[in-house]
Amino acid sequence: MSSPKDHRGSDSSRIVISVDAMGGDRGPAAVVAGIYTSAGINPELDFILHGPADELEKLVQRRRGLSERCQIRDAQGVVSMEDKPSQVMRHGKGTSMWSALESVRAGEATVAVSCGNTGALMALSMIRLRKLPGVNRPAIAILWPSRNPQGFNVMLDVGADIRADAEDLLQYALMGSAYARNGLALTKPRVGLLNVGTEEHKGRAELKEAHDLIAAREDAGNYKFVGFVEGGDIPGKRCDVIVTDGFTGNVALKTGEGTASLIGDLLREAFAYSPLSRIASVLALTSLRRLKKRIDPRRVNGGIFLGLNGTVVKSHGSADATGISAAVKLAYELARSGFGDRLAARVASAAEAAQDGDSQKDVNKS
Amino acid sequence: MSSPKDHRGSDSSRIVISVDAMGGDRGPAAVVAGIYTSAGINPELDFILHGPADELEKLVQRRRGLSERCQIRDAQGVVSMEDKPSQVMRHGKGTSMWSALESVRAGEATVAVSCGNTGALMALSMIRLRKLPGVNRPAIAILWPSRNPQGFNVMLDVGADIRADAEDLLQYALMGSAYARNGLALTKPRVGLLNVGTEEHKGRAELKEAHDLIAAREDAGNYKFVGFVEGGDIPGKRCDVIVTDGFTGNVALKTGEGTASLIGDLLREAFAYSPLSRIASVLALTSLRRLKKRIDPRRVNGGIFLGLNGTVVKSHGSADATGISAAVKLAYELARSGFGDRLAARVASAAEAAQDGDSQKDVNKS
Repeated sequence: MSSPKDHRGSDSSRIVISVDAMGGDRGPAAVVAGIYTSAGINPELDFILHGPADELEKLVQRRRGLSERCQIRDAQGVVSMEDKPSQVMRHGKGTSMWSALESVRAGEATVAVSCGNTGALMALSMIRLRKLPGVNRPAIAILWPSRNPQGFNVMLDVGADIRADAEDLLQYALMGSAYARNGLALTKPRVGLLNVGTEEHKGRAELKEAHDLIAAREDAGNYKFVGFVEGGDIPGKRCDVIVTDGFTGNVALKTGEGTASLIGDLLREAFAYSPLSRIASVLALTSLRRLKKRIDPRRVNGGIFLGLNGTVVKSHGSADATGISAAVKLAYELARSGFGDRLAARVASAAEAAQDGDSQKDVNKS
Repeated sequence: MSSPKDHRGSDSSRIVISVDAMGGDRGPAAVVAGIYTSAGINPELDFILHGPADELEKLVQRRRGLSERCQIRDAQGVVSMEDKPSQVMRHGKGTSMWSALESVRAGEATVAVSCGNTGALMALSMIRLRKLPGVNRPAIAILWPSRNPQGFNVMLDVGADIRADAEDLLQYALMGSAYARNGLALTKPRVGLLNVGTEEHKGRAELKEAHDLIAAREDAGNYKFVGFVEGGDIPGKRCDVIVTDGFTGNVALKTGEGTASLIGDLLREAFAYSPLSRIASVLALTSLRRLKKRIDPRRVNGGIFLGLNGTVVKSHGSADATGISAAVKLAYELARSGFGDRLAARVASAAEAAQDGDSQKDVNKS
């Protein structure tokens, strides 16, 4: 068995992604179609695919050249969307999800991708990969379409944990900015702390405390802190990384998705309304496709679990081949940049700086 | 001085709305233009307009027939967007905002409308109108474009208070469903309690407690409780009223607005991209206007302050004449339906039912 280092870094080495073929709404066929697309785009990419071997063999054989780049690991069990995380933690061994994480744990693959049950995936990731030293609560980070030049902002936590104290929010700032450096290629990401924006409001003492903590760690964390931001700044350009607790982040994420989806449907209705508007929709097709691509959640498919010994990409449960391929692309980029090790170094150095009572700047490249 | 009853109820009586002319981003000219529009649409509507008399006289005189339907109350002070609520509470007397609330307090007008500073307006409303008996925390409720037949859902609290315990959330359910009955003409609104949707999550004990309280008061409150809902249900069709604390509600509101605004801008860019798409935008003009109208925040302009002795409509600070007119229309509808008294009766009866330990059904019309 090889070490994680073997699969990462230079262009000459192969990058191996561990993929859970089961648990998504569209079944393993969509997953195999997605990794086939990714394999075509990135020649240095290999896969370990987890699920019922007989079924997967057939699907992989149908895709030309895929079997040479894809190992199959038999796992007969499947974690369903209805399974409770606590049950999966006790009885999850033998499932494709467990097996997919195991490849990362063993160092065979750098990043795991799954479109299964989020709660179960986080619970299994916590017990199998374990938390990074210095991290109390792991977080789920997502990319959000924004007005910034890079096209997306990072928001975390969107639902790993419903609570976060000031120290947790500081960890989110460190992890989120590390992700923005590696995933969005920003040298010094701007971090904002989500609030209702009115200083007058009393309470939420943890936000004021977090404000001071995050401001004090700007240098050690290699980010710029812009202070409190509001909901409107999540798709805005005031900052690149939005830090919040998992309850608020989850509500914001789903509200934004729901609003975008409603507008999309109303737009379709508007274009279907009259013969003239139907002609218009044909003329505007290219422009509308470009717009759709820009805000299509499938194109930025993948929440990242941060704060674990290993990187896990959670794809949407309803992801189709395009969505799976986007999640694999993200996994590939993170693997290639050595994101996991950099994040671990960053978190460890920040914890050290906190212990020393001063900031240290020697890991600013991570 | 007349009693509030004189201004409400049957079509034969006049309805008087108290309007703060100052404090909005566009100044009193936009406010006067807005009430002029409303006056043209609703012949039974009269106004009391608050602000610097000399300035307002000139603006009103320019609008044909408006001076006969609009009293002016001189108030030289203005609450600015930067003023802190605590300062306004101490020194706010003599401002147009204070004066506008005073007309409701004195019973000269049924509803007050202001586009000034939200925090200051809520603080002044609390001390001048006072809370309804049985209400601990007043709330701000807004209408949100949705997939429901009525076109909008009610969400509260969107920022009156950043905290809410289980009893407060029950009050919000009662007040929000009363608003949906009167503002959206729904006989038995469906109420949902905002959560992250995963039962597995620990903590947030107040939400579980609120769940049981709201379920137990279905009959007394004359609503249907659908249980926990998620962010995606705010613009959805699973319920008509979304209940949450003011922190989460404020973030959700601003996230939704920010997302809609980003999509709108990207859509404009898409249509401006090529000659073909510019032709398309001309052909689709009517359809796109209809869509815009459907989701234009100016058309549903107005957060309602609920839980006070008197109804206050908070218009967007940036509202133009169209926005002001929409806020006045909402104020008019609430005044005509006798919403304020109905809400007070509903909250009082629920408080009584809670004390008696059983539900009562004799106020189901409110």
